[in-house]
Amino acid sequence: MLVVMKSSASVEMVDAVVKAVADMGLKAHPIPGANRTAIGITGNKAQVNDSQLRALAGVEDLVHVTAPYKLVGRDFHPQSSEVVIDDVVIGGKEIVLMGGPCSVEPLEITLEIAKAVKNAGGKVFRGGAFKPRTSPYSFQGLGEEGLKILAQVRQETGLKIITEAIDPENLKLVAEYTDIIQIGARNMQNFSLLKAAGKSDKAVMIKRGMSSTVDELLMAAEYVLAGGNERVILCERGVRTFAAHTRNTLDLSAIPYVKARSHLPIIADPSHGTGVREMVAALSRASIAVGADGLILETHIQPDKALSDAFQTITTEEFSSVAKESAEIAHIMGRKL
Amino acid sequence: MLVVMKSSASVEMVDAVVKAVADMGLKAHPIPGANRTAIGITGNKAQVNDSQLRALAGVEDLVHVTAPYKLVGRDFHPQSSEVVIDDVVIGGKEIVLMGGPCSVEPLEITLEIAKAVKNAGGKVFRGGAFKPRTSPYSFQGLGEEGLKILAQVRQETGLKIITEAIDPENLKLVAEYTDIIQIGARNMQNFSLLKAAGKSDKAVMIKRGMSSTVDELLMAAEYVLAGGNERVILCERGVRTFAAHTRNTLDLSAIPYVKARSHLPIIADPSHGTGVREMVAALSRASIAVGADGLILETHIQPDKALSDAFQTITTEEFSSVAKESAEIAHIMGRKL
Amino acid sequence: MLVVMKSSASVEMVDAVVKAVADMGLKAHPIPGANRTAIGITGNKAQVNDSQLRALAGVEDLVHVTAPYKLVGRDFHPQSSEVVIDDVVIGGKEIVLMGGPCSVEPLEITLEIAKAVKNAGGKVFRGGAFKPRTSPYSFQGLGEEGLKILAQVRQETGLKIITEAIDPENLKLVAEYTDIIQIGARNMQNFSLLKAAGKSDKAVMIKRGMSSTVDELLMAAEYVLAGGNERVILCERGVRTFAAHTRNTLDLSAIPYVKARSHLPIIADPSHGTGVREMVAALSRASIAVGADGLILETHIQPDKALSDAFQTITTEEFSSVAKESAEIAHIMGRKL
Amino acid sequence: MLVVMKSSASVEMVDAVVKAVADMGLKAHPIPGANRTAIGITGNKAQVNDSQLRALAGVEDLVHVTAPYKLVGRDFHPQSSEVVIDDVVIGGKEIVLMGGPCSVEPLEITLEIAKAVKNAGGKVFRGGAFKPRTSPYSFQGLGEEGLKILAQVRQETGLKIITEAIDPENLKLVAEYTDIIQIGARNMQNFSLLKAAGKSDKAVMIKRGMSSTVDELLMAAEYVLAGGNERVILCERGVRTFAAHTRNTLDLSAIPYVKARSHLPIIADPSHGTGVREMVAALSRASIAVGADGLILETHIQPDKALSDAFQTITTEEFSSVAKESAEIAHIMGRKL
Repeated sequence: MLVVMKSSASVEMVDAVVKAVADMGLKAHPIPGANRTAIGITGNKAQVNDSQLRALAGVEDLVHVTAPYKLVGRDFHPQSSEVVIDDVVIGGKEIVLMGGPCSVEPLEITLEIAKAVKNAGGKVFRGGAFKPRTSPYSFQGLGEEGLKILAQVRQETGLKIITEAIDPENLKLVAEYTDIIQIGARNMQNFSLLKAAGKSDKAVMIKRGMSSTVDELLMAAEYVLAGGNERVILCERGVRTFAAHTRNTLDLSAIPYVKARSHLPIIADPSHGTGVREMVAALSRASIAVGADGLILETHIQPDKALSDAFQTITTEEFSSVAKESAEIAHIMGRKL
Repeated sequence: MLVVMKSSASVEMVDAVVKAVADMGLKAHPIPGANRTAIGITGNKAQVNDSQLRALAGVEDLVHVTAPYKLVGRDFHPQSSEVVIDDVVIGGKEIVLMGGPCSVEPLEITLEIAKAVKNAGGKVFRGGAFKPRTSPYSFQGLGEEGLKILAQVRQETGLKIITEAIDPENLKLVAEYTDIIQIGARNMQNFSLLKAAGKSDKAVMIKRGMSSTVDELLMAAEYVLAGGNERVILCERGVRTFAAHTRNTLDLSAIPYVKARSHLPIIADPSHGTGVREMVAALSRASIAVGADGLILETHIQPDKALSDAFQTITTEEFSSVAKESAEIAHIMGRKL
Repeated sequence: MLVVMKSSASVEMVDAVVKAVADMGLKAHPIPGANRTAIGITGNKAQVNDSQLRALAGVEDLVHVTAPYKLVGRDFHPQSSEVVIDDVVIGGKEIVLMGGPCSVEPLEITLEIAKAVKNAGGKVFRGGAFKPRTSPYSFQGLGEEGLKILAQVRQETGLKIITEAIDPENLKLVAEYTDIIQIGARNMQNFSLLKAAGKSDKAVMIKRGMSSTVDELLMAAEYVLAGGNERVILCERGVRTFAAHTRNTLDLSAIPYVKARSHLPIIADPSHGTGVREMVAALSRASIAVGADGLILETHIQPDKALSDAFQTITTEEFSSVAKESAEIAHIMGRKL
Repeated sequence: MLVVMKSSASVEMVDAVVKAVADMGLKAHPIPGANRTAIGITGNKAQVNDSQLRALAGVEDLVHVTAPYKLVGRDFHPQSSEVVIDDVVIGGKEIVLMGGPCSVEPLEITLEIAKAVKNAGGKVFRGGAFKPRTSPYSFQGLGEEGLKILAQVRQETGLKIITEAIDPENLKLVAEYTDIIQIGARNMQNFSLLKAAGKSDKAVMIKRGMSSTVDELLMAAEYVLAGGNERVILCERGVRTFAAHTRNTLDLSAIPYVKARSHLPIIADPSHGTGVREMVAALSRASIAVGADGLILETHIQPDKALSDAFQTITTEEFSSVAKESAEIAHIMGRKL
């Protein structure tokens, strides 16, 4: 770490920082500059806890050299991880498509969507049974009834299931039915939920929070790995910006960034990432081209009748078309679908 | 609500929207424009659920006329609410100061800070016992031991206590000890937690999420009121932007906006709102001047020794000085402290 | 347009709006709602100037139904435009690659880069002669000497030239040498410059401002078309967000959005869009896959020696590799390169 | 400066950086860390040009210790500057109020507004003669006719004049009539315009760009001072964020930040900073309380009839009320109005 002193910092202030560093069992290396001093710190095994140093008189800024994550990073785990769920492998050579309605629909409709997803080459079926909604008056999902419908989809189609858990207690229930537990964007820093996911034996997919940096996403994953669960998938789903033409701004640069720093697989969600049905296909192609390990898409046999998110849900025919285009781009990337 | 059709929308598409509106039991009023048609919708008692309309062919955009909240709004509750905790009233004529360390410190130190807060005119003591931290390796708070220290502070000083609850199970424990349950910024859309808070008999303070709109903050409060708990305080604590000179951008315009639309009290948090100790006093003055009902500040007898957030924690002497300046500005505003 | 009244608006306030609309020669259609009234406006040929209506008592919000642009929109110009510069066509079936150094380098180096760009399949050579720099002490470009070097590149390689103009006077000079005048991101709302570009007989490329909405980008182009110059190319180059892992956030959804609303061609700039050399290839692939009509990339034979932007400049070998990958993706898209 | 190497960087890569630093005539200080190396750089008189270093193999990040500005900074100019225009002093003990319509109105109306501004205690009259507008079809201001009206206002009232210049040629014309040349937010990084302002003998006010950091605002001012014009005033006018309840987010923390780092005066613009008439008074109070040297406000005798920005323009009665409240808060701050 580097401590940058103010230009007005006195020799005594610099000495106080050096002493504070020594008190932490670390070594300080003062570097006098043109009009201010910086102090390098060495000897730390993990990131230095900077709160106390930052508060010392004369300190202008602190700069971390060591990344704050270790279990999710490539430094000590250089090869890419694959998250394996029976015959489905996420993070390997194959691109994995996940699809389904925003909310779990009644059984018959849900099954029909699932069959279309499977026919198009999808491997994982998505559908929310417990829905985090901005308004208490909006439809909150079918609850456990929805989980049972998902279980039946798995039984009848062989598709793996991904569905969201919304609190630690709820996660136990969800884990009984699902193959992958989804941690939603609004819960990306719900640390109680992340800790519960860390103790689960089910795979976990963490969506990037709508104003989270990619490093914060990696730290959220670090919570799950630190809890003992190494089967974590990340998901870029768009961030909140001033842009008005989409619901969120899909930040595709997050994918090569994660790939360079972490061994975990990462997929993209162009449905939430745009919030606009007409843009989903284009951003799906872009996601595969940028290096995503898969896609998660909202699809429905009749989007206009969907229980929620109808405006960003594509038809199952469009899902099938996205699958074909993705396969072609995957091929160029030396991958397959 | 208004449905804006695309300029390319056919007569059939417009008719389909009119029919869909009628199927919802509402009335549609087509308004033909120069190069496109808009359709007004009336007859709705609450905000129209727009997901299905948005998905219809030819629909360009939807515009809500009715606000999505009702219990927190002034439409049906024009007079301002006061949240009363024994002799402390938040949202009344008096400005309420809350202060204390980021994390609860050992008893002796905590008590000493609390006495300084009280002497400066503070009415509520803050301190985190359960801390949501970006890193699993950061100090996570003293836990229930911290709650016991807070209870002792109340007993010895008479100050009311505010401390954060981090999940529904944890909220029950926190509620046993505290006077005000804090819902942190990262949990503003943790709906399980909001629902649990709605069933509590303790007052609740909700901090604005770091990328939440003010309307989303009001909707979070709507969850608590809809659950039966009307004693809700809002808190502006800064949002995440591109600005680099502060940790967050304190959005003081949120305060007059909330005051105009909601009857709930709202306070400001210049400590998190800037993340810079040197700016806390200036933004505290501005918060009172803009109309906040109070301040919540991180303060410590020795900030450099604080267990967390040292860099944004002011000394108890500075806290006292902020209290004096706030009192003077409150006086101008026709309020007192 | 729709005028949304406050729920507290009186009948007199509604009447005053209706009268104001009539005074503008337009027709008002009041739509009484559950707890407030909306007023539809028809009869306008262009977007209604809303400033005065917004200011009337009782007005909560205004909603435009008519898009603010007309010359750049598809409403009256449904087929896509091609910007033709001799044998180079931008916006047609072919993907166009533009490449070159950030700043024009000395002649020998510049020529060597240009030959590599041409060999890789590039059609347009980029290089800044006049550089807008945040610091007055940074290198500001070679000036007219740089323009002469660019002219020599054209003569020796046959590549078309794109270079930036920074003010109306400067634009006249730049137009003497270049084939395409670039309006940089910082000047996207420099309306004097846009007006000057509208009077030029050279093609113009406008980069999206770093905090501009896509509609504002379209309005900037509207200035140039309204001035009489129809040969306009748009460029998505990333916007400013809170994200810390890239210099800008490349907003690829802008491309399908523009394609749906405007007939103008649009290309992508992954060099500025990421600011990170290692990410340029991945985001280039994604840009083609999302539907861009071309790419503009910073490339150099020795990036480490570049006069500016070295950290986001790829080698000419990498440029060649991007060209190959782009050609493969273009093929899937039914295009070629 | 500090160069942070990647954990995978080889000894040779570190050596190459050390050599590159030496080639720049500076001194490198390698600091080996737990799992990567950092290299401190000393000997630089100004900020190190980092473009080439950033591009070297194995470099993860660069951290500047020296601030990029010098003329506007307090390091070499510790006392605050006052911008003096005859008897009006900006940046001194007195708070300066500037007011007037968005656009210059016809003479009679303009004069009436100006008299009200003067009666309320205003010292400077604002009004745009040349208006940068998003749409080419919006009213662009009265042009030179507007400047003549402003000159007449000065003659009849004694108020100083501030009005915007929009390009270098236009600046010469504007400078003939005005006392303070305004550089608008959209032109904050129009460096040709800043250079022209640097050569003017008139005072200059620079508004923060809507997505500019405060350091970029200071660098814009550095251009003007480097050109020879030391009479520069800064203005915080709100930045663009995701927030939807205001037109811009007024970032009041910019004011104490600038005060701590720069000797230049800084004022606030709550009219553009909120874009909502009802919020202007509250944010004006907050601006004075946070330490601004003045306010610039849009005011009109009949806001509903204003030629532009009617929705954020306050009445002259409201302006007078803001002046009274500001005077009271100024008094608390040890200032006057």
